Amino acid sequence: MSSLEEIRHSLAHLLAAAVLKKYPKTKLGIGPVIENGFYYDFLLPQSISDADLPELEKEMRRLIHLGLDFKGEKLTPIKAKKMFRGQPFKQELIKEFVKEKKSLTAYHTGDIFTDLCRGGHVKNTKKINPEGFKLTHLAGAYWKGSEKNPMLTRIYGLAFADKKTLEDHLRMMEEAKKRDHRKLGKELQLFEIVDEVGPGLPLFYPKGAILRRLVENYITELQERHGYLPIWVPHITKGELYKISGHLDKYDAMYPPMKLKDEADYYLKPMSCPHFMMLYKSLPHSYKELPVRWTYTGTVYRHEKSGELSGLTRVRSISQDDCHVFARPDQIEQEINLLLDTIEEVYKKFGFNDFWVRISTHDPKNKSKYIGDEKVWQKSEEALTHLIQKRGWKHEIGVGEAAFYGPKLDFIFKDVIGREWQLSTIQLDMNLPKRFELEYTDAEGKKRQLVVIHRAILGSTERFLGILIEHLGGAFPAWLAPVQAIILPISEKQKDYADKIFIQLKNAGIRTELNDANESLGKRIRQAEMEKIPYIIVVGADEETNKTVSVRERQKGNLGAMIPEKFIEEINKQAPR
Amino acid sequence: MSSLEEIRHSLAHLLAAAVLKKYPKTKLGIGPVIENGFYYDFLLPQSISDADLPELEKEMRRLIHLGLDFKGEKLTPIKAKKMFRGQPFKQELIKEFVKEKKSLTAYHTGDIFTDLCRGGHVKNTKKINPEGFKLTHLAGAYWKGSEKNPMLTRIYGLAFADKKTLEDHLRMMEEAKKRDHRKLGKELQLFEIVDEVGPGLPLFYPKGAILRRLVENYITELQERHGYLPIWVPHITKGELYKISGHLDKYDAMYPPMKLKDEADYYLKPMSCPHFMMLYKSLPHSYKELPVRWTYTGTVYRHEKSGELSGLTRVRSISQDDCHVFARPDQIEQEINLLLDTIEEVYKKFGFNDFWVRISTHDPKNKSKYIGDEKVWQKSEEALTHLIQKRGWKHEIGVGEAAFYGPKLDFIFKDVIGREWQLSTIQLDMNLPKRFELEYTDAEGKKRQLVVIHRAILGSTERFLGILIEHLGGAFPAWLAPVQAIILPISEKQKDYADKIFIQLKNAGIRTELNDANESLGKRIRQAEMEKIPYIIVVGADEETNKTVSVRERQKGNLGAMIPEKFIEEINKQAPR
Repeated sequence: MSSLEEIRHSLAHLLAAAVLKKYPKTKLGIGPVIENGFYYDFLLPQSISDADLPELEKEMRRLIHLGLDFKGEKLTPIKAKKMFRGQPFKQELIKEFVKEKKSLTAYHTGDIFTDLCRGGHVKNTKKINPEGFKLTHLAGAYWKGSEKNPMLTRIYGLAFADKKTLEDHLRMMEEAKKRDHRKLGKELQLFEIVDEVGPGLPLFYPKGAILRRLVENYITELQERHGYLPIWVPHITKGELYKISGHLDKYDAMYPPMKLKDEADYYLKPMSCPHFMMLYKSLPHSYKELPVRWTYTGTVYRHEKSGELSGLTRVRSISQDDCHVFARPDQIEQEINLLLDTIEEVYKKFGFNDFWVRISTHDPKNKSKYIGDEKVWQKSEEALTHLIQKRGWKHEIGVGEAAFYGPKLDFIFKDVIGREWQLSTIQLDMNLPKRFELEYTDAEGKKRQLVVIHRAILGSTERFLGILIEHLGGAFPAWLAPVQAIILPISEKQKDYADKIFIQLKNAGIRTELNDANESLGKRIRQAEMEKIPYIIVVGADEETNKTVSVRERQKGNLGAMIPEKFIEEINKQAPR
Repeated sequence: MSSLEEIRHSLAHLLAAAVLKKYPKTKLGIGPVIENGFYYDFLLPQSISDADLPELEKEMRRLIHLGLDFKGEKLTPIKAKKMFRGQPFKQELIKEFVKEKKSLTAYHTGDIFTDLCRGGHVKNTKKINPEGFKLTHLAGAYWKGSEKNPMLTRIYGLAFADKKTLEDHLRMMEEAKKRDHRKLGKELQLFEIVDEVGPGLPLFYPKGAILRRLVENYITELQERHGYLPIWVPHITKGELYKISGHLDKYDAMYPPMKLKDEADYYLKPMSCPHFMMLYKSLPHSYKELPVRWTYTGTVYRHEKSGELSGLTRVRSISQDDCHVFARPDQIEQEINLLLDTIEEVYKKFGFNDFWVRISTHDPKNKSKYIGDEKVWQKSEEALTHLIQKRGWKHEIGVGEAAFYGPKLDFIFKDVIGREWQLSTIQLDMNLPKRFELEYTDAEGKKRQLVVIHRAILGSTERFLGILIEHLGGAFPAWLAPVQAIILPISEKQKDYADKIFIQLKNAGIRTELNDANESLGKRIRQAEMEKIPYIIVVGADEETNKTVSVRERQKGNLGAMIPEKFIEEINKQAPR
């Protein structure tokens, strides 16, 4: 069996062969494997379009059917230069490899095509399923990613082991496109990214702001019900705090300092942990009051590269649902269990049934890599694994994958179109308590060091909303929908009645809109459906006479007429808790 | 009648005379008038303490009774230097005044004392009420405020027209000390300021964080009920935004930029208005959907001087309850009226009955100072005044006090000990809509410029909480109290019953604590009273038998036994709305 990696790499060569056949004057760039496929960069003698891709695919299939062998050959620098004469990008690579003292190899595909390449191919093109790949699209790409270099044409391809997997993937992509939260974010008027403010810094319209708040308030309320208390900390700090925490030297994504004349530098915070630590440290703590369970959903800022930013899922303004538990070592198991309870409750509420857990543990053969008490490591890793197993949750154990300061749980959620997203994290930390000298007084009055547990359920509000929008295709359940119900009077005659119902629902705390625009009922219903409002309430002459409302529920259809109180009761049943 | 200013200034001289009499080798600094009194700085030949002040006061009173005249004398530089021989600080001032070409004058108090002084004194010391002043305390102060200069001893005095006003002021200060929110903030464990984070950046413990949230959520809920919608904007922006708004050149309190290598400078926002403007601008708006009423309670950062910071009332992290209304000019009156409704509702809720309004209008004689349409100015100022008068609210009109871009309302609230605090502001703005080219489409499809109304009810969460803590002396009403009720079982035997009641109250959404510590009931009651918890719930054998709770309400005393459901009902009656 050839690996997908080999198949994809081989297809990149076949693509180059097909391009060279059609456009012999083409200068070749590079053609690596990427997630789900491959690409190849070309300097073409003429411009091409997506319409040219099927012909190239056809040629690639012809080459596959020829049953060509892939064969490697070691090259001397002289031979390499000769072999790739007329290919300036390859010549440039050869020079670099020689300079870096790397070995030079070429790979031949039969006697049809030869590329400068480190290998990793199928033995013969027959190993490639000719129906398992597809050229998808073109894009411009600078040679070596630098604007100073020529712009090349990049041709992208998808490749899988067979036709069905390819088609499933294409369908998933099609579905993902429809659900793209950037597209839905505009259509549903949730958020906007504005040049003058900057990339990765979304601004939220009222509907998006309400959505944010509903999600954040739900988490806050849930946490408090389980015994976690909120704190509040500012968004900036003197650098001193990050000297203590160690971030100042090591954390790359921090924004540069704000340099003052009369005071030390201030920093925008890239995480809130050190602020939590300082607040804990500002009070004395006895063993009796532990665990201290503190939460704070606040926005931190990380200067991610602008090229890596995307909608809400990769942003620079990150509103973390942070929780830190300050616990005695003997409380770790109980505290992790409580954290798992809260995560389980949240996933149930959002309908995230398909998830698994990665347990990252230390490598007992390499103890010097880790700080803290080996007993605490062992005991807590046993507890983590045991607690996950007891709940019957799918999991993987990554031995040696823990950070130097403690074991970790990551929750990976599979969305409705099969994509995996890492959401919640629980991280034990024996480092920050040490750096900040966090203590508690034990029953004998002695100072003892404690363990900190970091936790996020959603990760960040922004990213979570991006994922949730795509998972739900923008159709939020009634408890989360920014607009829960819209009232449509059939004609102008019901305007007063519609107003009355509107006020009644508003006063009952239901997020309601009223559309009495001078347009047909059909048009207004279609618009409400486009906006994915869970309940459409139509009021006509009958409803007014009977003092009822006619309710249509999204997806479920007509629920018939009912008194408004009944509708209020129904919708309130779906409240967050 | 002599002015208070003259009385205070004259007392400063008498203080210097008294000090010189007792410590003839004293070197004199300066002695200005300050709010409510005066001080004088001295380099004393020996250290003194508060215990020395009564003797100085006595001497000052003796001088008052002597009926000494204050007389000015113009001096030549030579005469001045001679007159203040042996007084190095005065010599320094003389040199400066000569350099700056200022005239030199001395003021004589009878033939007892002479000071280098510009004047502003009572004619005769008999004009000073000898019982109307008091020396209050000592402090160290560098000459001219610079650490490089010698440290002088500053003696502070209070002075009023008569004994009663002085005593009222002393009582108020005593009361203010007890209510000091910095002291109560520590005692009630609300917030802390931490060196490593920085001055003016308070961190909130759970009780303070809950208090913040209750206040902010109350305002949010109220606004939404009145038709205002929330938005969300980030805490930073590219400088570009402040170029458009004009703040980059003019706004001093902005933190310096975060300078990136690969991108334009980013700034921490000192206000959210420009973000609001950009979000409005990002969508087309028709006359039909105006007014657009948007709110956002978010934290902005201003680098106030560290010497001016104080607890929560002067901070660098300012969480503003911002509202911006985007309105057609014909909607100004209606929108101001709605804003006044919300302010009135909030003040009623917090029991702020004693307030007045400052109406700042433009100066019609100086039209060139202002931007915007003169008609809009006139109409909106008439509307503002009319609306305030209609409500019968105390007000003052400050002609010419408006900003160049629009008239303004300021609400000044008098707290329970008589101090005035400016809280709410409503500001019309014809400038930002122009700078951001904000428009709406009128009925004919033409683009029209609109008016923006800025508004804050609380001003900022931090400052409001500081004021509220002092106004209430930390005794929050039940709907605002971070802990609404505390359960105290009389003995260990009621522990289970107490737990049951605790869970019942918690589940009813009541912020409850349970204190079953091994301490006497009396001690636990006193502690709960110190923490100013509104309801103390005692459960003993009788309560357990009868399935009741015994409730004590703060200040009101014992309410007797009742079933828990009754108590829940009572406390829920006091919900925010």
